[in-house]
Amino acid sequence: MMRPFTKLLSLEDAETIMLKSVRQVERKEEISIGDVGGRVLAREIVSDMDVPPFDRSAMDGFAVRAEDTFPAGKFDPVELRVVGKSLAGHPSGAVVKNEECIEIATGAKLPDGVDAIVKVENTEVTDDTVKIFAPVHPGQDVSKRGEDIKAGQSVMKPGAYLDPSNVGVAAALGIEKLSVFERPTVAIVPTGAEVAPPGADLQEGQVYDINTYTLSQVALLNGCTPRPWGIVLDELEALRKALHEALSEDLVLFSGGSSVGETDILVDILKERGEILFHGIQVKPGKPTLCGEVDGKLVVGMPGYPASCLTNAYTLLAPVLRKMARVPPENERHMDVPISRRVVSSLGRLQLLTVRIEEEEAVPVYKESGAITSLADADGYIEIPINTELVEKGEIVRVKLFRPV
Amino acid sequence: MMRPFTKLLSLEDAETIMLKSVRQVERKEEISIGDVGGRVLAREIVSDMDVPPFDRSAMDGFAVRAEDTFPAGKFDPVELRVVGKSLAGHPSGAVVKNEECIEIATGAKLPDGVDAIVKVENTEVTDDTVKIFAPVHPGQDVSKRGEDIKAGQSVMKPGAYLDPSNVGVAAALGIEKLSVFERPTVAIVPTGAEVAPPGADLQEGQVYDINTYTLSQVALLNGCTPRPWGIVLDELEALRKALHEALSEDLVLFSGGSSVGETDILVDILKERGEILFHGIQVKPGKPTLCGEVDGKLVVGMPGYPASCLTNAYTLLAPVLRKMARVPPENERHMDVPISRRVVSSLGRLQLLTVRIEEEEAVPVYKESGAITSLADADGYIEIPINTELVEKGEIVRVKLFRPV
Repeated sequence: MMRPFTKLLSLEDAETIMLKSVRQVERKEEISIGDVGGRVLAREIVSDMDVPPFDRSAMDGFAVRAEDTFPAGKFDPVELRVVGKSLAGHPSGAVVKNEECIEIATGAKLPDGVDAIVKVENTEVTDDTVKIFAPVHPGQDVSKRGEDIKAGQSVMKPGAYLDPSNVGVAAALGIEKLSVFERPTVAIVPTGAEVAPPGADLQEGQVYDINTYTLSQVALLNGCTPRPWGIVLDELEALRKALHEALSEDLVLFSGGSSVGETDILVDILKERGEILFHGIQVKPGKPTLCGEVDGKLVVGMPGYPASCLTNAYTLLAPVLRKMARVPPENERHMDVPISRRVVSSLGRLQLLTVRIEEEEAVPVYKESGAITSLADADGYIEIPINTELVEKGEIVRVKLFRPV
Repeated sequence: MMRPFTKLLSLEDAETIMLKSVRQVERKEEISIGDVGGRVLAREIVSDMDVPPFDRSAMDGFAVRAEDTFPAGKFDPVELRVVGKSLAGHPSGAVVKNEECIEIATGAKLPDGVDAIVKVENTEVTDDTVKIFAPVHPGQDVSKRGEDIKAGQSVMKPGAYLDPSNVGVAAALGIEKLSVFERPTVAIVPTGAEVAPPGADLQEGQVYDINTYTLSQVALLNGCTPRPWGIVLDELEALRKALHEALSEDLVLFSGGSSVGETDILVDILKERGEILFHGIQVKPGKPTLCGEVDGKLVVGMPGYPASCLTNAYTLLAPVLRKMARVPPENERHMDVPISRRVVSSLGRLQLLTVRIEEEEAVPVYKESGAITSLADADGYIEIPINTELVEKGEIVRVKLFRPV
């Protein structure tokens, strides 16, 4: 009745297969500039204007003709007549002639006739004249029109991730709406008579559904929109119907029903509709992961045990979701610290051992793979390679962090 | 007309003052388990149940009385009668006696009378009996009731950050709604006649409003909800009214109007209503930052120049927003690489120099402080200390990353 795993893949190979098979989202939508943060640009932005749109002052001071200041010195100032004032948003209409200048504020437009700014620290005002105590060169403290962005320039390509700076670039051009890729959707289908939704009375042998909620968070944090399904029984017709419906989303996750005993139906249904890419990974926890492709979409059977499910979601699924959503991979955050005690691992499988950082040591918190608290208590995990049986106390290990410590 | 900065604070001191003055959000709300990701728990969670709620199998195999298996060996199996089957969610009603066992799946409830699991790999089924080829000890491959969480146990304290694992812990207890702290709100008030909203026709001397959009993103990414205001003129009555209204939010940001020339009105209004904490920071870019406290709330005048404003938002504001929202600080992400060319810095100010990572070198991309593209093109920044005038080509610098590279 129970079919064994035929061939276990390495975690790396499993990830390579999934990354190769997943399709990037192509659907686009228009989003207003206030809401585009974290989205991915779908259409190139070519500037239709210069930024800044005019020569402007980079300092508070006086806008001058530079040549008028050349003779100026600390003890021998040049005196210029102040013929106007240019504030940011309130440009001066004055045309500045020889021996004249205007008062100007940071960001304000330069009037015609001037080519440099003397900063206020080097001046002294008396009535309608100003003494200049240092010479300036043409262009000094002037931000030239188009210095930041030029009209006709391509400022952002499709695929650009809209972090705060890139949002700022779009705002600089006065763009109200941007064409971005839709967030891909992820169907999350909990399976099995053993799981019950939050708030329900547990029947004998039942536990609460955890994976729907942890997987939803992982989807959200990796650029996707989770679409949680109701609980589906591990029965042929029910699963077949659920798969059919869930294929309306961009990727389908089944959780539960992927251990040897329960997974056979899902394997059969995947074979009916598409193909199996792999079944079983040489990793602990997380071995019973199943992955297939149906209608060009990935269908993944996640391990039923919550800690295994979430560990696989972090290590295997997150990069796949990011590629689908076109968001850049996260920088890995890690720290190298000694391990607090000797750990024995099983040969033949990569072990992901959850640890807590305590007094600059990695303290193993691994319990059974069903224990969600083994992840909640952990700050990250270490990888014990397939061919390593023993990690000695005090050995330096690389902790890949789930969270800041 | 222009008052100089009286005393410049170091960036560190400015941050210390802000972190000391900011108040953490106290308002709570109830949120359903599917939507609590990234929020902060406001009420302790004490478990009212054991998790798992029953002894269950950690393996696919056979549930046995361990002592029956003691004589078993590789060439000398013990034969037991199979009297039932326990699947996850479908427990067996059988009571197992001596020399009996039941077939059991991972996650399924153990029936009365058994105390260990023999995994399927060590068995061979024949009709209604099974041969056991290896002995097991009592408790082997059994997850005991309450092994993960015990009834009465405190599983999460107020202040816990609801990352995927912690959401999983709440889900394990079947909790439908959690009490979490509200996301604090941040009023973002653009000021000055020189800024125009997206889509508007620019008047002479105007530029588009950038800071509202970059600051909104920084607020969102640091646990807060941005509340963008309309553009307010740099005039006494208009700013007074805007401040009064904006104090309905938890923190107020003015953007623009904080250079020497324009900021005086804001300084005066802050003094009317509360007190000035500091004005001016020894940092480049970002010097003209103003911070006051009114009615126990921070009011910050951000630099008007977009790159200065965003740099200060990353370095100074983000930790303050996180503290207000009670979300944990972000792990700093950095890399140590040689700098691609010699850089001259101004003595007397900490300089934040934006750089791009290119072929494992830090390449300066700093333009004028108004240039938003200097941030969009950058991967991070290096700090040039106050007393350093020169960084030589090839020197190793620490790049603090804005984004993955």
